[in-house]
Amino acid sequence: MSKGRRDANPPDSVKRAWGYASSHKANFVESLKKLVSQPSISAQDTGLKECAEMVRKGMSDLGFDTKLMSVVDAPDIVYGFLKSNQKDAKTLVVYNHYDVQPVEPVEEWKSDPFKPVERNGKLFGRGVGDDKGELVARFNAIESILNSGESSRPSIKWIVEGEEEVGSPHLHGFIEKNKTLLAGDGCLWEGGSRSPRGRSEIELGVKGLLYVEFRLRVGKKDQHSQYGTNPPNPAWRLVNLLKTIRNEKGKILIKGFYDDVVSPTAQEREFLEQNDFSAKDLKQALEIDYLLVEKDDIATVTKHLYSPTANIAGFGSGYLGKGAKTIVPKEAFAKLDFRLVEKMRAEDILSKLKRHMKEHGFSDVELVVYSGEDPAKTPVESYISQIMIRCVEMAEGEEPNVWPTVGGTGPMSLFTRGLKLPTAMGLGVNYAGAGFHAPNEHIVLDYYHRGIKQLICLFALF
Amino acid sequence: MSKGRRDANPPDSVKRAWGYASSHKANFVESLKKLVSQPSISAQDTGLKECAEMVRKGMSDLGFDTKLMSVVDAPDIVYGFLKSNQKDAKTLVVYNHYDVQPVEPVEEWKSDPFKPVERNGKLFGRGVGDDKGELVARFNAIESILNSGESSRPSIKWIVEGEEEVGSPHLHGFIEKNKTLLAGDGCLWEGGSRSPRGRSEIELGVKGLLYVEFRLRVGKKDQHSQYGTNPPNPAWRLVNLLKTIRNEKGKILIKGFYDDVVSPTAQEREFLEQNDFSAKDLKQALEIDYLLVEKDDIATVTKHLYSPTANIAGFGSGYLGKGAKTIVPKEAFAKLDFRLVEKMRAEDILSKLKRHMKEHGFSDVELVVYSGEDPAKTPVESYISQIMIRCVEMAEGEEPNVWPTVGGTGPMSLFTRGLKLPTAMGLGVNYAGAGFHAPNEHIVLDYYHRGIKQLICLFALF
Repeated sequence: MSKGRRDANPPDSVKRAWGYASSHKANFVESLKKLVSQPSISAQDTGLKECAEMVRKGMSDLGFDTKLMSVVDAPDIVYGFLKSNQKDAKTLVVYNHYDVQPVEPVEEWKSDPFKPVERNGKLFGRGVGDDKGELVARFNAIESILNSGESSRPSIKWIVEGEEEVGSPHLHGFIEKNKTLLAGDGCLWEGGSRSPRGRSEIELGVKGLLYVEFRLRVGKKDQHSQYGTNPPNPAWRLVNLLKTIRNEKGKILIKGFYDDVVSPTAQEREFLEQNDFSAKDLKQALEIDYLLVEKDDIATVTKHLYSPTANIAGFGSGYLGKGAKTIVPKEAFAKLDFRLVEKMRAEDILSKLKRHMKEHGFSDVELVVYSGEDPAKTPVESYISQIMIRCVEMAEGEEPNVWPTVGGTGPMSLFTRGLKLPTAMGLGVNYAGAGFHAPNEHIVLDYYHRGIKQLICLFALF
Repeated sequence: MSKGRRDANPPDSVKRAWGYASSHKANFVESLKKLVSQPSISAQDTGLKECAEMVRKGMSDLGFDTKLMSVVDAPDIVYGFLKSNQKDAKTLVVYNHYDVQPVEPVEEWKSDPFKPVERNGKLFGRGVGDDKGELVARFNAIESILNSGESSRPSIKWIVEGEEEVGSPHLHGFIEKNKTLLAGDGCLWEGGSRSPRGRSEIELGVKGLLYVEFRLRVGKKDQHSQYGTNPPNPAWRLVNLLKTIRNEKGKILIKGFYDDVVSPTAQEREFLEQNDFSAKDLKQALEIDYLLVEKDDIATVTKHLYSPTANIAGFGSGYLGKGAKTIVPKEAFAKLDFRLVEKMRAEDILSKLKRHMKEHGFSDVELVVYSGEDPAKTPVESYISQIMIRCVEMAEGEEPNVWPTVGGTGPMSLFTRGLKLPTAMGLGVNYAGAGFHAPNEHIVLDYYHRGIKQLICLFALF
């Protein structure tokens, strides 16, 4: 099986819904603006209650059975269920979040983050893409189907949480308690993706993440560095610990670290080779000046997606100001994130790290664990993967890039392993350069409407 | 030769001067308060001109020939010369500075730093010890001698600079230009010292200091750590560099680093053994919770004073806030200070470090040099050392601790090597716990008056 060109002619029911969407573009953008205008910043506990109710009402207006499900110490999770009009229909689970990132630094915004405005075919505002744009595009797609004549369609179970931007700390518990409620045949993840050149992308996996901090404190005060002969220097000690973890060539020295790393399958390799990818374009879109090595070769891309890492994300000790200060620091810390690939497990790597520290004489170093998420991967052969590829072909007239996994991380394994739901990302509005999490977050309105076309295919044909 | 008890009975001329000092205690403290009330913060260019003139006038009133010597881009250096009343008298060179440290954090001061006040036998204010207390105590001692009947005394050459607290950046050039003006038979360094138990100390050397910063910058922006597989991580690179510099046991791995390290002489060892020293008392006086290993043994003290160090004073890279942020840092830096012992030279160690970086593949790492000062040491057999020990014995009735060197650093080598002047520290008002450079800097008034007694001996008998 490959993603080679197939019959991309959609059924009439889809065409009718596309027609509806095409004549309601202005209304759809207005409905997105309305949701974006409601702040819902999880990190600052702002407007979450109001936003959850808006989302619930949006679903309810479409005909979903809805409820606001309360979670201890967390904002409500919106749940909606739309029963299929057919017997034996499949059930599609849909995941979104209604919270957004803080807007700081607010002075870098060219317009009010919560008063969305259009400029040059783009719509600017906090959450206009992540994730309200994706969410409202799904509303718009379902509305288009329901208003363009009866046709077969799947049942839809939809959860929209309010804590994604702070790491979804309660999602695991919620899913454990609600496995039946969330049972289904596949899951549509939070949003879509387009390459810098505008090609739609389907993404079938994420890396895992173990994020830890090493902390060392040897005294209450920094000391004059004339005493550097005698007291333990925590910065040196941390350098000594770190050098046991990774060598000069980037190889990670923790015993058993690579035990569960797998290579791409033949089919995955085929997709990697077919994908239209340009490191140069990506660097430009992300406004960064270095990234992958300056080659678009398969080896580099494979290394990026299939290698685990041990990354120093922060190292702080002693005097960090300008010029010289002669002290022995009282403390030192280093923040490390380990990106994990199939079939590694965060829990396992953590216990290997602890054993490593013990064996190398660093048991006394405090180890703080900030997060441990497992990687996830959905086979390209799965029903959801295949139909999403076809939806892109129908709506765009060209094949998507298909990424067996991405380099980033998300709580997808809660769905793939916790709920045994094949889960895929794609069909939506995000694109490289949208500036999610940054000032002047925006979407391209043309991509928005094309995303709705893609989503109509999925919600009609799943 | 040892410092064993000798005739500690001072000549009558000294006793007369002590009598004068004893009956002028209140005036002496007032004269110190007056100078402290004049701010003179070199780091903030505040009040330096006014303070220099006050010091010049103070010397002039005592009968010195004085001048304010201008230095390009620097505050004036005050120079004073008092000719001996005898033929073939020796010449004592005296070094002080009239600038003080900034007062920040000002909210931690219990009283105005520039309105000196007495509390519980102590005098509080910025510069009350470092270095105005030492300077005015010398004024007071000379005044006492000159006002208690003619007697033999040396010539005195005195320089008082205004940039010591910012690292004396122009002193080297000044000395090079004025070697004849500063020629003499010995030099009294900027101040005295007392152990935590109150025993006077004579210090005959300082360590050198090479202070560098390694800087690495790989891009303009931090990057998402999903790209941790590919771009160079500057924090890891710096760890890799650092681990080539010093091993787990503290041994410095730069080729030739230890070539010029010398062990204490038999006589130096004798002093180290005789000195009254307590790590516990010192920790308490400095309000620190760790210092030397918890032993007062000669091996520990010897290691402290005779070993060079490579100390990490600061290491900064990436995210230093609370919690987790998944980035590859755009840059990393580490500040290192190397303390050097006789007969190491800062210039030599710097070139060895550069060679080391090159040989280990780190030529591209930026190397910033903040300071390079050579160590200095004056033999205990020198005239200035011997007479200062005797001055303490006469004034205190007990032997001083004699330290062949201290762990700290100062520009003493400009005098010992640049001017070939045997140079010693001691005879003054500073004591462990005085809080130099910190809020609530203070002196003990009893030590102040006893310091004047010691200084009278030196200025009368040198």
